[in-house]
Amino acid sequence: MPYELYYWPGLPGRGEFVRLAFEAAGADYLDIARLPKSEGYGMPALMRALEAKGDSHPPFAPPFIKDADLVVSQVANILEYLGPHLGLVPKDERLRPVALALQLTITDLVAEVHDTHHPIASSQTYEEQREPAKARAEAFRRDRIPKYLGYFERIAAANRSGWMVGDALTHVDLSMFQALKGLAYAFPEAMAEAPVKFPPLYAIARRVRELPRIAAYLASPRCQTFNETGIFRHYRELDGPAGWDKGD
Amino acid sequence: MPYELYYWPGLPGRGEFVRLAFEAAGADYLDIARLPKSEGYGMPALMRALEAKGDSHPPFAPPFIKDADLVVSQVANILEYLGPHLGLVPKDERLRPVALALQLTITDLVAEVHDTHHPIASSQTYEEQREPAKARAEAFRRDRIPKYLGYFERIAAANRSGWMVGDALTHVDLSMFQALKGLAYAFPEAMAEAPVKFPPLYAIARRVRELPRIAAYLASPRCQTFNETGIFRHYRELDGPAGWDKGD
Repeated sequence: MPYELYYWPGLPGRGEFVRLAFEAAGADYLDIARLPKSEGYGMPALMRALEAKGDSHPPFAPPFIKDADLVVSQVANILEYLGPHLGLVPKDERLRPVALALQLTITDLVAEVHDTHHPIASSQTYEEQREPAKARAEAFRRDRIPKYLGYFERIAAANRSGWMVGDALTHVDLSMFQALKGLAYAFPEAMAEAPVKFPPLYAIARRVRELPRIAAYLASPRCQTFNETGIFRHYRELDGPAGWDKGD
Repeated sequence: MPYELYYWPGLPGRGEFVRLAFEAAGADYLDIARLPKSEGYGMPALMRALEAKGDSHPPFAPPFIKDADLVVSQVANILEYLGPHLGLVPKDERLRPVALALQLTITDLVAEVHDTHHPIASSQTYEEQREPAKARAEAFRRDRIPKYLGYFERIAAANRSGWMVGDALTHVDLSMFQALKGLAYAFPEAMAEAPVKFPPLYAIARRVRELPRIAAYLASPRCQTFNETGIFRHYRELDGPAGWDKGD
């Protein structure tokens, strides 16, 4: 029975962190909201699952997955749950909480990226919060990009295996790849120097991109491009220099 | 060997979600940064652990715990890790991801509360971002408080056991209690009606508050009061009506 992924269609968004895990493992999954409405899928199926009248544990928001009758929500939780099934957690049990902590730090980074274009209210458009967005994006580029990337680089460099945690690919590497890809899309000027500043970190991202299954996925129509309805958005006026001298 | 908790002294903050777990279980723990500097604890010990030169898995930020030589960071991850040791996860293994999803949704709520007074930059003071804070707090009261509380009420009501998940106390109940307490401190006007609007949810919070070990902790000097250096801050100008008619 295939896993079912429930996420908004038309943007990579937070769903992409889950897709990359399925794709890297060659797992059988259905991307429910992107399948035909005429076959019982599409947005109506997503909305039904979200309302989940009969379910005592409905998710707060997409993405969530179904594994038979179990519903699992929240990206880091989904990856922690799927990890052992997909071979994407460290073999050493004691590194499991290390991997989850790193994944949750990526979650925090992603939430901060979202808030660069929506610093006031998710319920309003970007255009309604342009001025505070400029201020938040500037602080994000100055303080937060260097802090997060400096931290992740420290982890990548200390681990020495060529992966973020343990001695093999985990969900952390996949999500790190996606976060760096999204940052480069949203903030090309701020991120221009990042690959030369953080060689071990970018070596991991390159290694992920070149995994045969990931390379095939990225070249396929299953992989959606970033756009300005998603989390990683490019608005020229929000980009600018990063505060590299403030980094860790 | 006692657990070690590392968190900023002087505020309950995110550390409190971990303290409540230790206290509810009657676990032996050291609140490192609040112990005397003269004995090798205090802020210097926190800063040393955060820099962790020799450690290949340093935390991104407090709170984090040490269990012997294992460092575990990120509140939800700490609780997922401690849960089985402290008897604070559901006995039914299949409910573990349900509990973690709920805990992570509380994490999201707490991050949004923080951003009501810091919508632009953590590196700036509240006073430097007062105007956007007003707008963000208004949207938070109007849209987000009803959405989160409506969701948690739905979970509490559906579960029927008198606890958030499964049939006994878990870390989710403890964190729910703390989040509601913090919201009531920060937004007394917005939250005034919440207890009558969400009876099952508040029954859980009351049950937590009346647990003998929690009641003793809350009355002890170990329990710090909310203040305006923390995550839950009360600024009169950020409070006002909640948008209950917009709730789930």
